[in-house]
Amino acid sequence: MGSRRTFIRNSACAATAISLSPSGMLAFTPSAPAGTLRVGLIGAGLRGTNHLNNLLQREDVQVTAICDTDPGRIDLALKLVREAGKGKPATFGEHEHSYRDLLGLESVDAVIIATPWLWHTPMAVDAMKAGKYTGLEVSAATTLEECWDLVNTHEETGTHLMLLENVNYRRDILAVLNMVRQEVFGELVHFRCGYQHDLREVKFNNGQQPYGGGVEFGEKAISEARWRTLHSLKRNADVYPTHGLGPVAAMADINRGNRLVSLTSSASKGIGLHNHIVAQGGPDHPNASLKFKQGDVITTTLTTARGETIIVTHDCNLPRPYSLGFRVQGANGLWEVDGDRIYIEGKSEPHRWDAAGPWLEQYDHPLWKKYGEYATGSGHGGMDFFVLHAFVQSALLGEAPPIDAYDAAAWSSVTPLSEQSIAGQGEPQDIPDFTRGKWIRREAYDWIKDTY
Amino acid sequence: MGSRRTFIRNSACAATAISLSPSGMLAFTPSAPAGTLRVGLIGAGLRGTNHLNNLLQREDVQVTAICDTDPGRIDLALKLVREAGKGKPATFGEHEHSYRDLLGLESVDAVIIATPWLWHTPMAVDAMKAGKYTGLEVSAATTLEECWDLVNTHEETGTHLMLLENVNYRRDILAVLNMVRQEVFGELVHFRCGYQHDLREVKFNNGQQPYGGGVEFGEKAISEARWRTLHSLKRNADVYPTHGLGPVAAMADINRGNRLVSLTSSASKGIGLHNHIVAQGGPDHPNASLKFKQGDVITTTLTTARGETIIVTHDCNLPRPYSLGFRVQGANGLWEVDGDRIYIEGKSEPHRWDAAGPWLEQYDHPLWKKYGEYATGSGHGGMDFFVLHAFVQSALLGEAPPIDAYDAAAWSSVTPLSEQSIAGQGEPQDIPDFTRGKWIRREAYDWIKDTY
Repeated sequence: MGSRRTFIRNSACAATAISLSPSGMLAFTPSAPAGTLRVGLIGAGLRGTNHLNNLLQREDVQVTAICDTDPGRIDLALKLVREAGKGKPATFGEHEHSYRDLLGLESVDAVIIATPWLWHTPMAVDAMKAGKYTGLEVSAATTLEECWDLVNTHEETGTHLMLLENVNYRRDILAVLNMVRQEVFGELVHFRCGYQHDLREVKFNNGQQPYGGGVEFGEKAISEARWRTLHSLKRNADVYPTHGLGPVAAMADINRGNRLVSLTSSASKGIGLHNHIVAQGGPDHPNASLKFKQGDVITTTLTTARGETIIVTHDCNLPRPYSLGFRVQGANGLWEVDGDRIYIEGKSEPHRWDAAGPWLEQYDHPLWKKYGEYATGSGHGGMDFFVLHAFVQSALLGEAPPIDAYDAAAWSSVTPLSEQSIAGQGEPQDIPDFTRGKWIRREAYDWIKDTY
Repeated sequence: MGSRRTFIRNSACAATAISLSPSGMLAFTPSAPAGTLRVGLIGAGLRGTNHLNNLLQREDVQVTAICDTDPGRIDLALKLVREAGKGKPATFGEHEHSYRDLLGLESVDAVIIATPWLWHTPMAVDAMKAGKYTGLEVSAATTLEECWDLVNTHEETGTHLMLLENVNYRRDILAVLNMVRQEVFGELVHFRCGYQHDLREVKFNNGQQPYGGGVEFGEKAISEARWRTLHSLKRNADVYPTHGLGPVAAMADINRGNRLVSLTSSASKGIGLHNHIVAQGGPDHPNASLKFKQGDVITTTLTTARGETIIVTHDCNLPRPYSLGFRVQGANGLWEVDGDRIYIEGKSEPHRWDAAGPWLEQYDHPLWKKYGEYATGSGHGGMDFFVLHAFVQSALLGEAPPIDAYDAAAWSSVTPLSEQSIAGQGEPQDIPDFTRGKWIRREAYDWIKDTY
């Protein structure tokens, strides 16, 4: 496995040229010999095929293997590869552990794991042990032990793990990160973020369509409702913290000169999912008698070593428009995504908000300036292109990724620790230092760089 | 004292007619005999004279006494009374306890206390003991013992206390309360609120003007900076919770079928006041060496007996535009003041916000419809008229006020309890049941009623 990583690094170091195909797709043309990253996809559900579509648009990637236990998804994935004229990947999926056969392939340099949450850490651990540069979908880990598994396996194997947190690459987020780095906000003080997304039609469907049309979950449902909803039924926790916390952690240099220290968490009553079942399926539907443990709005307050506070919200069971609720506040001013506004002392009119737009344009991130038009259509407003771009670049160079095993562990630890805090009526919880002290000298990731 | 209260009640019960003076001022004309409330004003600073101006516009009020230890403020207050052609109140202020002489007057039925915070509870306790219907400015109490003092004195004397929380009467707040009562949001789940107001120029001045122009506080400053800033220097606590919590407590029926149960609180680093001193006064100014204990952003999460959560923010030391950050969220949808938006399932387009304006107009509160034009100019967007209106009405009727001693105690307890929680790294704190169990049968206040 070591030789594979060395090969990737050597070949990728020669990669300096970039060209764009006439179709507008990003086409990466490495110098000879080939600097192609050979990717195995583990999980070909909605998220996995979204990644697959983006992988197929890259000249610097070859999809060499695909694993899914659902033959229908394998067929669909192969069709996508065929239509892209990108060869025929090996396929796996006979049983739940067939992904290990994929990991045994010499023809796979890196894997992307997009499977139900309970499989994330076991698969990522196996992938790192197999020496495959590992891209892992959110959320990474569901218990504190799993958080440590990711870190320990990374350290034992020397194999890198990247958490594929796409929101870190949202255009406004990278612009605000740019503003943070240029100290527009001054010394940072306070952050807010969260996952506020009405997922009721994601958590329940009719077994025919992925979103809604019924109030089934588990074995009677398909897609996410088949596995995701159980986390709401059984756990009173912020089970999905990273879309909010990830971008904030990058701005706050978490694990790189700063770290998460402690948290408290509180949950409101949980009525949204029950109400939805009754409204859509009637009061006599078997699921109407279930007691969902998850509170509808879960609020977690984190403290950092540098003295900032971060409020993370989980709000997915009630009717509401989508918002990740970002706020970035420092000594000189703040950005709030709700209201789309920025205030910077000495620049803004005193006590009056500026519209955020012109500020975000002014500080538009170099990556978005360079690739923005090619990101269009990649999914989730373009950010899926960038998270994959970072993954592929890091893997080809054999470098540590922007969002690594320590980040995956620290961010994901909010799930079990919020659960413990809620169970303890808000009892504060220490957040482990997953870097084992190295955060004091680990340098901030250079989000501005673009190695191509 | 009992006879005085009886008199007020009897005379006020006859008060049924209302007329408006040609000048547009609200003129209350009671049936004979006179139903005039004779008010003593304790504290004639900026806030006190604001109340005075509004009192002087009411035909149902006579200001019979004024107390302030600053002779200049007494002179100004007398000038205002004289210009209104409203007689000559008795004045007091020779020493700090001269207010007790005011409380001894037979010619005072009710008092309004608008003094520095540390005087609030002692004065309110004395006023209730003197049988004066007591209006108390926010914040009411600074320690848990003081919260109990307010409740115990009210219960021992039978005298009513109204906390003069004006934000409870803001037009949008009362419209949203109206929506809550009409169950537009459905079962309530979650609230956000807070005091987010850049007070740096309130906390520091040059001793000549009330706002800014220098970085002095305490004895070298005037107005609020003379006493308020010490609370930021010495206490890491949400010292001003009620502008946010008050309106939410009314919507959530706190102390009336519901109660505040527990809280956790976290404070960010505190750099804003120091930065301000250095920026405005230079690094060598003596105040630049002070360590302000108060964190710049303090986040308190409260839980209620009915299972809601309430997030209260205190954010007063950094550059930022004003916002009380309200959010009211229930089973059917939510209102957010930031972004000025409402979403109601089945009414709003799915997953899209409505502008709040039309909703707030549709549910405009009867009080605002009736008196809105007369509230103009009363201060703070008109809400000062309404809080005073409720106080005068309640006092004339001898009735319990909308915001009573239990509310004053419960809301104010956030200050000492947030301080304890912060000192304990977020340790949860039980909130005392100041009603001693009576919250289970106390009825919701009818904010819709208007007794005139």
